[in-house]
Amino acid sequence: AALKLAVEMKEHGKHEKALKLFEHALALDPTHADILNEYGEFLENQGENIIKAEHMYYRAIAASPQHSKAMANRQRTLPLVQEIDQAQFNRIEKKREMFFRIPENHPGLRRMKKESYIHHIYHTVALEGNTMTLSQTRSVVENRMAIAGKSIMEHNEVLGLDLALSYINSTLVQKIGKITLNDILEIHKRVLGFVDPVEAGHIRSTQVYVGHYIPPAASDVSGLMEEFTEWLNSDVSMRMHPVELGALAHYKLVLIHPFYDGNGRTARLLMNLILMHAGYPPIIIPVGEKHLYYQHIETASEGDVRPFIRFIASILERTLDDYLLSA
Amino acid sequence: AALKLAVEMKEHGKHEKALKLFEHALALDPTHADILNEYGEFLENQGENIIKAEHMYYRAIAASPQHSKAMANRQRTLPLVQEIDQAQFNRIEKKREMFFRIPENHPGLRRMKKESYIHHIYHTVALEGNTMTLSQTRSVVENRMAIAGKSIMEHNEVLGLDLALSYINSTLVQKIGKITLNDILEIHKRVLGFVDPVEAGHIRSTQVYVGHYIPPAASDVSGLMEEFTEWLNSDVSMRMHPVELGALAHYKLVLIHPFYDGNGRTARLLMNLILMHAGYPPIIIPVGEKHLYYQHIETASEGDVRPFIRFIASILERTLDDYLLSA
Ligand SMILES: Nc1ncnc2c1ncn2[C@@H]1O[C@H](COP(=O)(O)OP(=O)(O)OP(=O)(O)O)[C@@H](O)[C@H]1O
Ligand SMILES: Nc1ncnc2c1ncn2[C@@H]1O[C@H](COP(=O)(O)OP(=O)(O)OP(=O)(O)O)[C@@H](O)[C@H]1O
Ligand SMILES: [Mg+2]
Ligand SMILES: [Mg+2]
Repeated sequence: AALKLAVEMKEHGKHEKALKLFEHALALDPTHADILNEYGEFLENQGENIIKAEHMYYRAIAASPQHSKAMANRQRTLPLVQEIDQAQFNRIEKKREMFFRIPENHPGLRRMKKESYIHHIYHTVALEGNTMTLSQTRSVVENRMAIAGKSIMEHNEVLGLDLALSYINSTLVQKIGKITLNDILEIHKRVLGFVDPVEAGHIRSTQVYVGHYIPPAASDVSGLMEEFTEWLNSDVSMRMHPVELGALAHYKLVLIHPFYDGNGRTARLLMNLILMHAGYPPIIIPVGEKHLYYQHIETASEGDVRPFIRFIASILERTLDDYLLSA
Repeated sequence: AALKLAVEMKEHGKHEKALKLFEHALALDPTHADILNEYGEFLENQGENIIKAEHMYYRAIAASPQHSKAMANRQRTLPLVQEIDQAQFNRIEKKREMFFRIPENHPGLRRMKKESYIHHIYHTVALEGNTMTLSQTRSVVENRMAIAGKSIMEHNEVLGLDLALSYINSTLVQKIGKITLNDILEIHKRVLGFVDPVEAGHIRSTQVYVGHYIPPAASDVSGLMEEFTEWLNSDVSMRMHPVELGALAHYKLVLIHPFYDGNGRTARLLMNLILMHAGYPPIIIPVGEKHLYYQHIETASEGDVRPFIRFIASILERTLDDYLLSA
């Protein structure tokens, strides 16, 4: 019924109303192939959101693999979307080259790097629920003095990120060759070490839960981590664009959820290590975009990881723009 | 000259003056056998300090192994001193039995145990230089909130002791059989884990210094620790009085100084573990007695470990008295 109404609205040019009706219909029945397909066509006709449209066709086909309209629609839109994605990668690479040409000792660059170090700590612990402000975070890192009204563990989350980041910058970025399981454990040991010195650096031995996602059983984790690091260093991975590899590594790691806590922070650091190995600056997932961030991970776990990769790519492009402006 | 004067004073009954002169003479020449022997005789004649007198004869003989007067003096006093020491051990054992008979759930005992837990943390981190007051220590343990004006690491030293103590109480005290190297490393991991999550629980890899004492080279530590734990679980050790074993274990551990930091705290916990295994309550070395504590360790490293054992025994006896009074 909602679908019929939405199509009517669409035909009458009532875009706002149609959009709402499509969203409403999908909320009620998120795997209804006809709605998904019609919604895709609607989005496409709006002229701009071809990426989202193609995602709807993709979902329609996932729900109903023989849906001929959706298949035809997707066949037409997929190459266009790939072109858009590729164009973004190309822009990012150009910007990386420009970024690379800024002299190491450029005062603007150095200031930005120092700032982004504190910002990374601030946003990544805030994502976890830490209530320190940016300036409190800075004070903890610089003075190591306690801040009244905050828990000791909030301080220790900040110290952990500081230690992990400086370990990555001083040791792992320089290290050539594979990223090993041990590297990931060493990152985690630092991220969580001040909060839980006994468990930090070790794979979990119990079941964990992330919202309604149930990660694999503890007994499977070490096998999955072996597979994961094999994949991380495989030829296929080496041929991927670093942004794609970084985002996928993040996604795959949180899917395994190898630790009882600190998976997100460790995954964000691993992603940044991959970016830095490829000559990119590290990126920050802003705490303000937590909802989007979680949503893209969920979309990935439903089968389409591209929105998450695009999300990371856009943040990286913004980051590069900021660096280029600072120099 | 000082010796001659001291002897004159002694003969004229000027005890105060003589005492000062002996101490002065020894400060100038601490291995002068005649002074040591005369001082011993003086102390003995004072009627009370036979333990200190015997220690002086011991030192005289150590400085000059053929010193016949000192040898005769020692032969006479040693059995008396041994009797005094044994009497103290006997008293301690009696008190342990009385302590043992207090019901676990006696409210006074429970209050004392809870209090002494916080006191232990307070004193042991204060010995290290931590500036938290007793009530701040309590607040950190109970509320885990930061205290303004204190460094984060001071908080983390408190958390480390809390974690180590509860690990000992919940796990190691119950564990039957040997105390292993791993047990000691697990204690250290908790003591220092919040301060240095990477190094905690690991034997040092660099040289360290304690005042003017230079512990063994890092490369020797793991061999020495193996010897140490062998000794700790040897038949000889099992036949020792637990107070002697605990004190010796503490002394030997700080002599090796296996960690780059936290050796004192770990040694005090190991000593308490040994006492608790034998049914004694754990003891607290009060921060106010730091000077004496260090001095006895130094005396031990000069060859006479008995003053350190007596120091521990007296604290234990005081502790037992307090517990018996509380019930
Ligand atoms: N549906 C999901 N499935 C798998 N992983 C998810 C999902 N939603 C979010 N995540 C990831 O799990 C992380 C949270 O896991 P965890 O609490 O172990 O990490 P953290 O580092 O403690 O927290 P945070 O990432 O919030 O700082 C999120 O940051 C995100 O990366
Ligand atoms: N002359 C000495 N030789 C060997 N060990 C000593 C000597 N004097 C003191 N010590 C021991 O060394 C400890 C200090 O070593 P370290 O700093 O590693 O321990 P800590 O736990 O950090 O400090 P603290 O014991 O003061 O809390 C002292 O507590 C004491 O037990
Ligand atoms: Mg978490
Ligand atoms: Mg120290």
